[in-house]
Amino acid sequence: MYVIRKSNLKSDKLKITVALIGASGYTGLELLKLLIVHPKFEITYVGNSEGGIKVEELHPSLKSVFSCDVLKSDAKEIAKVAQLAFLALPHKTSMSFAKELLKLGVKVVDLSADYRLKLDTYEKYYCPHEDKKNIPNSVYGLPEFYREQIKDTSLVANPGCYPTATLLGILPFCEFIDEKYPIFIDAKSGVSGAGKKCSSKTHFVSIDENIFAYNPLMHRHEPEIKEKMKIYSGKNFDINFVPHLLPIIRGEMIDSYMLLKEDGLKPLKILREFYKNEPNIRIYDHPVDMKSPSGTNFCDIFAKVVGKKLYINSTIDNILRGSSSQAVANANIMCGFEENLGIPIIAYVP
Amino acid sequence: MYVIRKSNLKSDKLKITVALIGASGYTGLELLKLLIVHPKFEITYVGNSEGGIKVEELHPSLKSVFSCDVLKSDAKEIAKVAQLAFLALPHKTSMSFAKELLKLGVKVVDLSADYRLKLDTYEKYYCPHEDKKNIPNSVYGLPEFYREQIKDTSLVANPGCYPTATLLGILPFCEFIDEKYPIFIDAKSGVSGAGKKCSSKTHFVSIDENIFAYNPLMHRHEPEIKEKMKIYSGKNFDINFVPHLLPIIRGEMIDSYMLLKEDGLKPLKILREFYKNEPNIRIYDHPVDMKSPSGTNFCDIFAKVVGKKLYINSTIDNILRGSSSQAVANANIMCGFEENLGIPIIAYVP
Amino acid sequence: MYVIRKSNLKSDKLKITVALIGASGYTGLELLKLLIVHPKFEITYVGNSEGGIKVEELHPSLKSVFSCDVLKSDAKEIAKVAQLAFLALPHKTSMSFAKELLKLGVKVVDLSADYRLKLDTYEKYYCPHEDKKNIPNSVYGLPEFYREQIKDTSLVANPGCYPTATLLGILPFCEFIDEKYPIFIDAKSGVSGAGKKCSSKTHFVSIDENIFAYNPLMHRHEPEIKEKMKIYSGKNFDINFVPHLLPIIRGEMIDSYMLLKEDGLKPLKILREFYKNEPNIRIYDHPVDMKSPSGTNFCDIFAKVVGKKLYINSTIDNILRGSSSQAVANANIMCGFEENLGIPIIAYVP
Amino acid sequence: MYVIRKSNLKSDKLKITVALIGASGYTGLELLKLLIVHPKFEITYVGNSEGGIKVEELHPSLKSVFSCDVLKSDAKEIAKVAQLAFLALPHKTSMSFAKELLKLGVKVVDLSADYRLKLDTYEKYYCPHEDKKNIPNSVYGLPEFYREQIKDTSLVANPGCYPTATLLGILPFCEFIDEKYPIFIDAKSGVSGAGKKCSSKTHFVSIDENIFAYNPLMHRHEPEIKEKMKIYSGKNFDINFVPHLLPIIRGEMIDSYMLLKEDGLKPLKILREFYKNEPNIRIYDHPVDMKSPSGTNFCDIFAKVVGKKLYINSTIDNILRGSSSQAVANANIMCGFEENLGIPIIAYVP
Repeated sequence: MYVIRKSNLKSDKLKITVALIGASGYTGLELLKLLIVHPKFEITYVGNSEGGIKVEELHPSLKSVFSCDVLKSDAKEIAKVAQLAFLALPHKTSMSFAKELLKLGVKVVDLSADYRLKLDTYEKYYCPHEDKKNIPNSVYGLPEFYREQIKDTSLVANPGCYPTATLLGILPFCEFIDEKYPIFIDAKSGVSGAGKKCSSKTHFVSIDENIFAYNPLMHRHEPEIKEKMKIYSGKNFDINFVPHLLPIIRGEMIDSYMLLKEDGLKPLKILREFYKNEPNIRIYDHPVDMKSPSGTNFCDIFAKVVGKKLYINSTIDNILRGSSSQAVANANIMCGFEENLGIPIIAYVP
Repeated sequence: MYVIRKSNLKSDKLKITVALIGASGYTGLELLKLLIVHPKFEITYVGNSEGGIKVEELHPSLKSVFSCDVLKSDAKEIAKVAQLAFLALPHKTSMSFAKELLKLGVKVVDLSADYRLKLDTYEKYYCPHEDKKNIPNSVYGLPEFYREQIKDTSLVANPGCYPTATLLGILPFCEFIDEKYPIFIDAKSGVSGAGKKCSSKTHFVSIDENIFAYNPLMHRHEPEIKEKMKIYSGKNFDINFVPHLLPIIRGEMIDSYMLLKEDGLKPLKILREFYKNEPNIRIYDHPVDMKSPSGTNFCDIFAKVVGKKLYINSTIDNILRGSSSQAVANANIMCGFEENLGIPIIAYVP
Repeated sequence: MYVIRKSNLKSDKLKITVALIGASGYTGLELLKLLIVHPKFEITYVGNSEGGIKVEELHPSLKSVFSCDVLKSDAKEIAKVAQLAFLALPHKTSMSFAKELLKLGVKVVDLSADYRLKLDTYEKYYCPHEDKKNIPNSVYGLPEFYREQIKDTSLVANPGCYPTATLLGILPFCEFIDEKYPIFIDAKSGVSGAGKKCSSKTHFVSIDENIFAYNPLMHRHEPEIKEKMKIYSGKNFDINFVPHLLPIIRGEMIDSYMLLKEDGLKPLKILREFYKNEPNIRIYDHPVDMKSPSGTNFCDIFAKVVGKKLYINSTIDNILRGSSSQAVANANIMCGFEENLGIPIIAYVP
Repeated sequence: MYVIRKSNLKSDKLKITVALIGASGYTGLELLKLLIVHPKFEITYVGNSEGGIKVEELHPSLKSVFSCDVLKSDAKEIAKVAQLAFLALPHKTSMSFAKELLKLGVKVVDLSADYRLKLDTYEKYYCPHEDKKNIPNSVYGLPEFYREQIKDTSLVANPGCYPTATLLGILPFCEFIDEKYPIFIDAKSGVSGAGKKCSSKTHFVSIDENIFAYNPLMHRHEPEIKEKMKIYSGKNFDINFVPHLLPIIRGEMIDSYMLLKEDGLKPLKILREFYKNEPNIRIYDHPVDMKSPSGTNFCDIFAKVVGKKLYINSTIDNILRGSSSQAVANANIMCGFEENLGIPIIAYVP
């Protein structure tokens, strides 16, 4: 493996060796972009399902920046060279790797859904689980809520992009929300959220100058949001989730609508107090826009109350905070590093 | 006035002479596009606030298609040459023209907000009204609901774009909706809805690859929706409206969320029955997309019920069904023509 | 076959029956859009390579506008019901249908490359030709140059999109261009020009916010331009063609650069004189934009001379003037109708 | 001035203090983004023409990242706190600041056109020059060609975006190009190149789904390219430049067409040899795309020869390599730092 320029960008101190499994997709590329310049992680293994290709052939923008062979992923080989593995794999595929890697002593940050849910919820919405033993040991990787647990675990279940932006906006209000009424979540995602695979939905001519909802009131992120709200608050909320695809490459916006138990809540005050020590949350007194957190690990949040009605408006970069930069933050915490180490704070604006 | 090619496209039969006041904006252009090829309307006056320009200088895409002088709008001059006037003007400006034109015997289709609301509602959300006398004579120009009244009026208040798409989706369900619970409306509009005036919000670099909400829970279309639902159903619904601007030129999508009084409603059956004779409404069994009605007068609607929760998803072309083609449909009805005369049914797809 | 609303839009006079073969692509949709509302053509057959689908399933924007079964294309069946056929097929496939249809007495407008070139040119750039007999009988369907021949032929070879925009700009200058120097053509196309098939190049994430050249100096449209210039002028020009893909759905711009034999040419005067009776050509005294001819059959042209250097800048709608509306214009001419019959002149602006 | 998080990102070693004058535009934002995380530059002054605003109000994406007062720019105040100043100002305004700052001993990187050209060329294309004395002392800031001179100067004239991408592609070929024949340059720029000021050209509705040329064969970057080629090669080339605006936020592509003196040139071999030690140039064996260098200081180049015809295809990020990152690279060289210090190499892809 040959890494161009890398030495200039990193100190020479002891590093953690890391593997990236699932290098082909957008999430894989974002992980690479973060890890290449990370001062404490050393990439020692890059794999996908096929192997036999150079990483800069998969991702031409890495030309002259980073070069290595992409290998056909093999857990035993990974365990020989890496202390921690990022799994950017489809659900089901992910659990088989995680199971084996954990057994071999490799820490795992799993970006799939495989360890995010309780067993029965998972099997209801996905498929039979093949690594039931590790589910109770996994920690849900939302640092603002599970930072301490993440420090001590070997397995982080990295949250879904929609749940990340939704939960960061809504969890601070759990005690105030009237759970007798439904919560409606109108979500909007850039096309990178639909993955790199070509389809009629992601053809430029189909989605440019267009927008459409998909899987309304039946998206798999609905139970993830519901379950995490239950765990945090002890209450059963009725979550109703409608995602949309937008003619935008990256980014995600969540608009949540719900009823409060009482009038007169000051939502911005609550948010500012709740997140006062959190460097990756920005509270706004006007609606947020999708682009401002682009390229960063920020979650931007605005909220407004009229009478008993609460409106929460949050945005993230779907493939960073909604996936890869949150994964690196979790890995930083697992390894005892500063949470934001190596994660950009400068947005892709303009 | 010199009209190129027009003679080829029209029959020589008796026509209604029409004026277009407010030719400069996107709505003005859409009216021109419809009227130029309309078989029964003859454009005899095109005005804006300044005059002194050719229409193809205002709208270069009309070069070699249609040419005439744009005049500084003058009600008396209009009354000499036109039987009907389309007012594509800002609110307040519009009522002063409408008042004078109506007195001079000119029929008016007003695309502004000036005659859409009851006096007290109008003055609460806009400004003092200067033509109170004509408010009771105006008809709200949503043909599916007020076709008979439009036939007999001289003054149509053309609905706002957001209310059009919202009401067409929601009115068929009024009797089933639980009015004790708020209705949340998450609206998305293309940038043409923000008008032709340059601003930092409409600069390409600001809105491309971006989306943001504006005036959340305080948009002026909120009272319009509320009042029309009250008039239609006799009930006071609690309307909560959050519009967003999208990196799209034309089109509008409404996602409405509400509670029903009872379980088990079949929303598509209700919509299909309700609109069974309506040529400009299309009911879908999957979520609608913004582009399919682009360039036409269609409103596309999908709806879904889970338990007592109702989700309605509707799209229109914001500057056609949301403004200019609905105005021409109203003018057709007022003049005794077939409602869809001269209005395209072929979408701008791809 | 069931056609909604069609009767309202057409007179009942005697019509020409037409078949559309190759209904699935963007070109097929544009043909449908034109033919549905055409006053003199009656669609009696719609086919593609598979059949067994409704046309509004192939093209959802046609819902409630036009409905018919799409059949597995069969020349004998076509000949039973249609007097003229539009072939929107890949090259090679097209010639086999054309051959058979012509034998059965059906007129053909072929949108593929199969009859555009002389035999040797075709076989050099495409494949062995299987209908050599009909090549000499075909007419190149650029009406401004071959109108008289089109009237009398049974086989029109509809020009390629790039050659259309290039030749309309450049042919008026053939006598002035210095053929000892190369002509450089920098072409830009919307993504619809790359077809409906999904690929990594047409994925929204690949082409949005991006532009790239493809097949530089080796595109198949290069010999088409060269040969047509030779036929028209008797001279061998050295054509060098570099096409680019743009993050735009429809439209095409050609920028041509060349040397003149002498100084002092007035290019706009030449263009205005050359095209003075041509309704589908618009000459501008400033650079043209891609959107103004969108939705129409116009070719917009600007040109500028500095010393001996000539710059020509032309735009068309790539799937209308560059394909389907030019095909309908050719069919109109072949059938003795007015050339622009049923072809929109109102652009998709804004 | 309060800088959030900055201490985490920088070492505590001795730094150069820098001022940014002209903080409001896109170029100003890009400079801020680079300087905030630069390990050796310490921002001590941020100014614009008005002052009285916080930098995160000018650029909301900097919220929680960087905060300081933006001051009404004053050369004497700048000289008190800064050793080097970046001038992101309009031409003419820039020279008045540069003159004063240089007198006060402040090094200057001028991003305007004011010191790029010889006096007579400047005054022909711009305006009378008010700092003639410093023109001969300025160095043209194209590091690949003037690295040594940049080390020793106090005044760098940062190249224009179009000349940067053009010259990096074309200069390696100067000795092979036939100067008797014109060079045609077809340039394409994202909208950020047109600046932050709102205008009808930069309104989303005007440029989305559109493209147009502007100032064809008369753009001010034409003489800059010509003069730099003359200085480098001693030859007078005939440069013909046609820029286009694209519906893209950032990036720039240059397509150059010219004739060589002889057949058989291997352009990629020449480029690879010429730039073999240059870390910021990437040579491709296929056409380049606009997005791959986005967010970086790279210039990506492809070239192809057919006979005597040479086609060069180069792309840069117009507001980084075409402006701000090149400015920082120049400042690095002037201060004796590594040229790429603090400049990202990871592209904004996807």
